[in-house]
Amino acid sequence: MIRIGIVGASGYTGVELARLLCGCPDVKLMVATSRQYNGRKLAEVYPNLAGMVDIACEDLQTEELADRADLFFTAVPHETAMEIVPDLLQAGKKVVDLSADFRLHDAAVYEKWYQKHTAPEYLAEAVYGLPELHRQQIVKARLVANPGCYPTSVILGLAPLLQAGVIEPETIIVDSKSGASGAGRAAQTGTLFCEVTEGFKAYKVAAHRHTPEMEQEISGLCKTPITISFTPHLLPISRGILSTIYAKLVSPLTDGEVSELYQGFYKEEPFVRLCAPGSFPATQFVRGSNFCDIGFKADSRTGRVVVLAAIDNLVKGAAGQAVQNMNLMCNLPETTGLLAVPLFP
Amino acid sequence: MIRIGIVGASGYTGVELARLLCGCPDVKLMVATSRQYNGRKLAEVYPNLAGMVDIACEDLQTEELADRADLFFTAVPHETAMEIVPDLLQAGKKVVDLSADFRLHDAAVYEKWYQKHTAPEYLAEAVYGLPELHRQQIVKARLVANPGCYPTSVILGLAPLLQAGVIEPETIIVDSKSGASGAGRAAQTGTLFCEVTEGFKAYKVAAHRHTPEMEQEISGLCKTPITISFTPHLLPISRGILSTIYAKLVSPLTDGEVSELYQGFYKEEPFVRLCAPGSFPATQFVRGSNFCDIGFKADSRTGRVVVLAAIDNLVKGAAGQAVQNMNLMCNLPETTGLLAVPLFP
Amino acid sequence: MIRIGIVGASGYTGVELARLLCGCPDVKLMVATSRQYNGRKLAEVYPNLAGMVDIACEDLQTEELADRADLFFTAVPHETAMEIVPDLLQAGKKVVDLSADFRLHDAAVYEKWYQKHTAPEYLAEAVYGLPELHRQQIVKARLVANPGCYPTSVILGLAPLLQAGVIEPETIIVDSKSGASGAGRAAQTGTLFCEVTEGFKAYKVAAHRHTPEMEQEISGLCKTPITISFTPHLLPISRGILSTIYAKLVSPLTDGEVSELYQGFYKEEPFVRLCAPGSFPATQFVRGSNFCDIGFKADSRTGRVVVLAAIDNLVKGAAGQAVQNMNLMCNLPETTGLLAVPLFP
Amino acid sequence: MIRIGIVGASGYTGVELARLLCGCPDVKLMVATSRQYNGRKLAEVYPNLAGMVDIACEDLQTEELADRADLFFTAVPHETAMEIVPDLLQAGKKVVDLSADFRLHDAAVYEKWYQKHTAPEYLAEAVYGLPELHRQQIVKARLVANPGCYPTSVILGLAPLLQAGVIEPETIIVDSKSGASGAGRAAQTGTLFCEVTEGFKAYKVAAHRHTPEMEQEISGLCKTPITISFTPHLLPISRGILSTIYAKLVSPLTDGEVSELYQGFYKEEPFVRLCAPGSFPATQFVRGSNFCDIGFKADSRTGRVVVLAAIDNLVKGAAGQAVQNMNLMCNLPETTGLLAVPLFP
Repeated sequence: MIRIGIVGASGYTGVELARLLCGCPDVKLMVATSRQYNGRKLAEVYPNLAGMVDIACEDLQTEELADRADLFFTAVPHETAMEIVPDLLQAGKKVVDLSADFRLHDAAVYEKWYQKHTAPEYLAEAVYGLPELHRQQIVKARLVANPGCYPTSVILGLAPLLQAGVIEPETIIVDSKSGASGAGRAAQTGTLFCEVTEGFKAYKVAAHRHTPEMEQEISGLCKTPITISFTPHLLPISRGILSTIYAKLVSPLTDGEVSELYQGFYKEEPFVRLCAPGSFPATQFVRGSNFCDIGFKADSRTGRVVVLAAIDNLVKGAAGQAVQNMNLMCNLPETTGLLAVPLFP
Repeated sequence: MIRIGIVGASGYTGVELARLLCGCPDVKLMVATSRQYNGRKLAEVYPNLAGMVDIACEDLQTEELADRADLFFTAVPHETAMEIVPDLLQAGKKVVDLSADFRLHDAAVYEKWYQKHTAPEYLAEAVYGLPELHRQQIVKARLVANPGCYPTSVILGLAPLLQAGVIEPETIIVDSKSGASGAGRAAQTGTLFCEVTEGFKAYKVAAHRHTPEMEQEISGLCKTPITISFTPHLLPISRGILSTIYAKLVSPLTDGEVSELYQGFYKEEPFVRLCAPGSFPATQFVRGSNFCDIGFKADSRTGRVVVLAAIDNLVKGAAGQAVQNMNLMCNLPETTGLLAVPLFP
Repeated sequence: MIRIGIVGASGYTGVELARLLCGCPDVKLMVATSRQYNGRKLAEVYPNLAGMVDIACEDLQTEELADRADLFFTAVPHETAMEIVPDLLQAGKKVVDLSADFRLHDAAVYEKWYQKHTAPEYLAEAVYGLPELHRQQIVKARLVANPGCYPTSVILGLAPLLQAGVIEPETIIVDSKSGASGAGRAAQTGTLFCEVTEGFKAYKVAAHRHTPEMEQEISGLCKTPITISFTPHLLPISRGILSTIYAKLVSPLTDGEVSELYQGFYKEEPFVRLCAPGSFPATQFVRGSNFCDIGFKADSRTGRVVVLAAIDNLVKGAAGQAVQNMNLMCNLPETTGLLAVPLFP
Repeated sequence: MIRIGIVGASGYTGVELARLLCGCPDVKLMVATSRQYNGRKLAEVYPNLAGMVDIACEDLQTEELADRADLFFTAVPHETAMEIVPDLLQAGKKVVDLSADFRLHDAAVYEKWYQKHTAPEYLAEAVYGLPELHRQQIVKARLVANPGCYPTSVILGLAPLLQAGVIEPETIIVDSKSGASGAGRAAQTGTLFCEVTEGFKAYKVAAHRHTPEMEQEISGLCKTPITISFTPHLLPISRGILSTIYAKLVSPLTDGEVSELYQGFYKEEPFVRLCAPGSFPATQFVRGSNFCDIGFKADSRTGRVVVLAAIDNLVKGAAGQAVQNMNLMCNLPETTGLLAVPLFP
């Protein structure tokens, strides 16, 4: 039995981890921290967990934490994560960090988009936790940087094309749309029901912090530095990201040829589902699941390819991918706890 | 391995059965009928099932059907069900019927609210499939009439009070609210997105066909015929029913005394969760699950008790309860396939 | 030109007043206060107002305020209102107070449901601003207490039946459902998009502060003290209240007879629309308008009548009714600025 | 008094015309056709119109129609429009056609994207009814082809940049998102509430019929034929389109320089509102109004500009723009009936 801790258990990502771990027979959630709800049952804060999750929230120092579990999920904001993670690692623990603090290999890039990095010595060792690209490294890692929600959809959407060298990477434009759970559970005017429902808008246009993370992985696949355009939007839904991605084809391709590239690239992957040519993914068909559904269209009129990738931002975009990484790091079957059928309608 | 058939697999209830059966290791879905989608994969019609459910829809005669499975779920409209069910029973099959055709013991009552009954000879044997009230009969039944969605919430909400004799049953008023999936997947103007979203209304006021079903079970618990007021409303959500139920207390009770009645009545029940006094259920906390969450308030100002009961209308209100009944009829553990954590947010 | 001030202009009710006043040619919004947004244009806080409302928010003392306008809307929380209103009245201003502070005639009742009343000397003079019941007093008032949103729907729904004496008032049960804008624009976890969407729940069961306000007006119509049951619920919509009201009929009535009572009572009313027998109101058909739509069903099975009343909680339930009161107090045509067609879909 | 007819009055666009015409004092709605609801009051089909619109639907031949009004809005599907419009014109009537049938100047392009054109002789005379580009021609037109909803947002978003020659038009990528009312009120599975809510998807990727319409107007502004990429998506909202538009800048520009181009181009326009640099439009802030709100970001990292344009698809994207065109064609003040404040929340 592997003992698990969740640091930051009362946010939407933390509680999604708790939900998913209910389906993992070989691990046990031993400790869950929350400053805000210290002393209260997690199931009292999230009544959906009643009868299923019996743990109470605690407000602990890192030293106390470390004794209680073997692997930790750190589901705290960036900046907080890099204060905690080094101590957990030094205590011999494995860590899946869901913040942005260890995703970028280059501290200078991190500091340009975020703030000063206080634990840059761990950046070289941290593995970017996208199993479809870095599975072998994840298996051996003690620190996995769980990818951002937008980057997961975008990198999975582009990887087969980039690896095959069939698109011009400098022409990549990413137009992404996310549900409101991506903004977390903090009380703020901008995510009130009345502000979000029956509405739609872009935010942080050409300025979102997930941009360098995508550029890092895209550049890695291209073996040359790439700059992309990225626009995130806020959807009036709870869960789900759809990324619509545009790029110029190096030379004309048919839908069938594009399809073959994707099928080849993802043929062994349990969590990538490819849409039949002519159909496209929808967020409602991945809801609650760890799937990334991908569709595409080679447009002979414009010489571009349009790729569409859908995930549940709280699952494949956060907690589900974190559990997938945990499974890999602990030598458990990779799909354990992650094979729920998407909930539709 | 028990072989399962779903008659009417392409409606929301049929496909929810297919989803839930994925979590049942001792049964196997062998046949799924749909006139509309004959020949198409169910996962093509419902892409959330891609990679999880590999069955194709068929349009079969009852005779052909019967050979293919041991237990059938009939998820077809009333009137259609009573044409099919007798043949399945005569072929020696077990049936969980999700229509209204076998729920009312009295054909005259059925004919008052619906239309002529063409198989009244099966009404005496059909068991009303609410396990919390009729578990022992369900275990032995070959025909279970799966309860309506509204009645499930209302009967579970009232049963402890009725059995204890603490309310005046003639004062019962039921104000229920349901998500739009209760209206099914037929293309109709009234359930278009634009007609439902950002809106709320009552329908079939004092005239809904679930009324006699509730009255039958309430009368059974009271051992005397009872008439109730029932108003259904349409919520701008997909899944969920909340019933708010009012009744006059025979004599004053505290919340604590009411709580004891509920705790006693439901202490062994795996799918009824009681809210702590002062908190109340919400549909979002049972979403995708087989739970019925119940809260209440004894109001000393008015001498009434207010009971609130929440279910997912497609799960405990339909497919989940049907699987629970299947488990009982097949001597499988009652909770098999039904212990998913509700999906929130 | 009548000069208008809004105290508390940046909440949903305040900004709705600003929106509606754009359609009133004989009045001019001169001052709008907001502590939070002091110095910022209201149209910057609410970009829907861009190009339409050019006023900036100010944080003013009551003395400074009083000089700037002739009539004030006080759209601030209860307790704050009773600090401001007396000074405005003493400065010779007219006031439409949208808080609860002057709605209850009896300070003792107020103090039982709210807290100590610091200006009880104004309670006798304050007129309960429901024009359909108290028009003549409103015309002469200098202080109008604008009704609560729930009470507006409930009192308009019941008044014809109570006045005609055809229901037993002690059997009244009110089951109301409101959109999230009723909770205001304060940042709080409970009204975040993800907490509200695709969900439904009751709150403050048998304990909501609008109860005594309804009881006061119902008792007035009955000429005897009445106690009612009231349960509010939170709908996943922005705007709209639907109240479903139950009462025992003194003696059997047909729908036609009930219809005549309503038609007689409301025949001159510009903002009450009666549904044809067999149809029922919906919140989406009053959205953005000052209408109250009412439907009903006399149920011969149970001897009860069910009344359904729908309003837009921000318009007829708050700002629209306040403008209607302003029109009456200022001898302007009562419907000025209030005849927009409801926005559907 | 100008007499108005609406052909196809019972769709969302037709009824939105009826709603807006209530605010136009110099015109009168004389006839409204609907095959489906022949003989029924429009306010019975759309209860939001109760007490405001008193017309009944009729099913008329074109000859009968023509006598009844001076100007007609044809709010019928393409193909149907080109059967009706020629007869109305020959009867001396003015027509604002809301279908696609007369928007494309080149019958060959029309026939490539739609089907055979049966009235190509009117294409040369039809004016593309975007007042911000073609006001002078609209004033003199007898046939105005009211623009599509997506093209309205895209062309208004791009016009200042195209006219100034600061972008490379062959790099234009348009990613648009529309509310469900754009799909109309026909009963179809794909726009049921349960299929749309809490979901998001693209459709007709690189194949939507609004593409040639945008290309025609963009090419006109560039004075050279341009091909663009266009992806429409379905939002879980009723009303609203947001288009996110990408293009390569010919040479670097600051946000301030871009802002000046927009301010210059739109300085006299009553229905275009420009966002301050750093803020972006949202569909909820134009809801129910004829405004097009536009924001932008010049991205020095990528050398691209991102433009965001928001409209209400039923107003500026259909009925409101049609009324604006009517006002121009009838020498009424252009903004008559169109100055409602957007409804938020």
